[in-house]
Amino acid sequence: MTSLREAMEWRYATKKMDPSKPVDQKKVDRILEAIRLTPSSSGLQPYHIFVISDKTLQAKIMLSARNQSQVVDCSHLLVFAAWDKYTNRRIDDAYDLIHNERGYVKPELEKYRESLKKRLPYMPPQVQSSHTAKQTYIAAGTAMIAAAMESVDATPIEGFDPKDVETILGLTDHKVVLLMPLGHRDDNDWMLKEKKVRKSLESLVTVIK
Amino acid sequence: MTSLREAMEWRYATKKMDPSKPVDQKKVDRILEAIRLTPSSSGLQPYHIFVISDKTLQAKIMLSARNQSQVVDCSHLLVFAAWDKYTNRRIDDAYDLIHNERGYVKPELEKYRESLKKRLPYMPPQVQSSHTAKQTYIAAGTAMIAAAMESVDATPIEGFDPKDVETILGLTDHKVVLLMPLGHRDDNDWMLKEKKVRKSLESLVTVIK
Repeated sequence: MTSLREAMEWRYATKKMDPSKPVDQKKVDRILEAIRLTPSSSGLQPYHIFVISDKTLQAKIMLSARNQSQVVDCSHLLVFAAWDKYTNRRIDDAYDLIHNERGYVKPELEKYRESLKKRLPYMPPQVQSSHTAKQTYIAAGTAMIAAAMESVDATPIEGFDPKDVETILGLTDHKVVLLMPLGHRDDNDWMLKEKKVRKSLESLVTVIK
Repeated sequence: MTSLREAMEWRYATKKMDPSKPVDQKKVDRILEAIRLTPSSSGLQPYHIFVISDKTLQAKIMLSARNQSQVVDCSHLLVFAAWDKYTNRRIDDAYDLIHNERGYVKPELEKYRESLKKRLPYMPPQVQSSHTAKQTYIAAGTAMIAAAMESVDATPIEGFDPKDVETILGLTDHKVVLLMPLGHRDDNDWMLKEKKVRKSLESLVTVIK
């Protein structure tokens, strides 16, 4: 898969994956590396990713995801869990890492860290979780593109019970916002025959010169 | 720019763009095409994109965006505006397009359309706008990647007054969620010298085999 466009035209929301075709671990590693490099607001990367290959666990999650078969037919189930909220600790961890990695403390960045600590944890809870969820969706979008460029099928799934999945994974300070099975399409997937439809550029975009 | 990884390592949140280097229109067109191909929940593409090159308009928006210079130093300012809410009309438009493009009506899809109309417009207003915003962030993430693969700089900006920008653009049924100037970095941008820092894979990802 070379061009981004080819990859995006090739991909589709796979409804039936072939369980006999696991995804090459090297490809999964490159997809995860792309997720890791994804930009996020103020560089906080406010999420955690689970990569689940355990079949028992996948089956439990499938029951909370309207029995969508990709959850168990995939070889790797990505679970995108957003921070439930911002805390000083989380902000400090991110900025300590930046300083440690760069080997120096930049005063402007320290000032910025403090401004984040004065602002983010005091936003209304719903605004905080919506903000972390949006950042998580950027990462999920990256994962879909990275997968497509590796000829790996990825199906974003929002139709599941978040609380159930959080309980299954023992999560108390994250909200699961998206599931994404990684696998390879079953050649008989009915969805494969459906033409991809998108709005025209004219209806989606307004140019003001 | 060949590999996704190289592109993602090359990109950074450009703080200073060089106004004497406009982005090639062909590159902008490919970035917009990538946005157009971006997947979204139930295929609704619940957003509209503005591409603003008009300098007067850019200057007005800059005043509502903490005077961040990229807004006027870029050649193309992308404005990502999410639907304020779901309506039957919007859902019908999307599914009519699918049927028209495919040339046949699939009963299962008709059933799905009706289920969306029974569910989405009845979600609490905040849940609706958060949902459309998350889909918009997938498209914005695509734009960042597509730009990087074209060696185009793109700076996502959340620090602006949405209501101001909506007023400037005359938007009454969309919420502006993100600005993204497209341009080329000024070689003296201080941010260019800062090492990109990301969490380690070990701290970001949990593998369950």
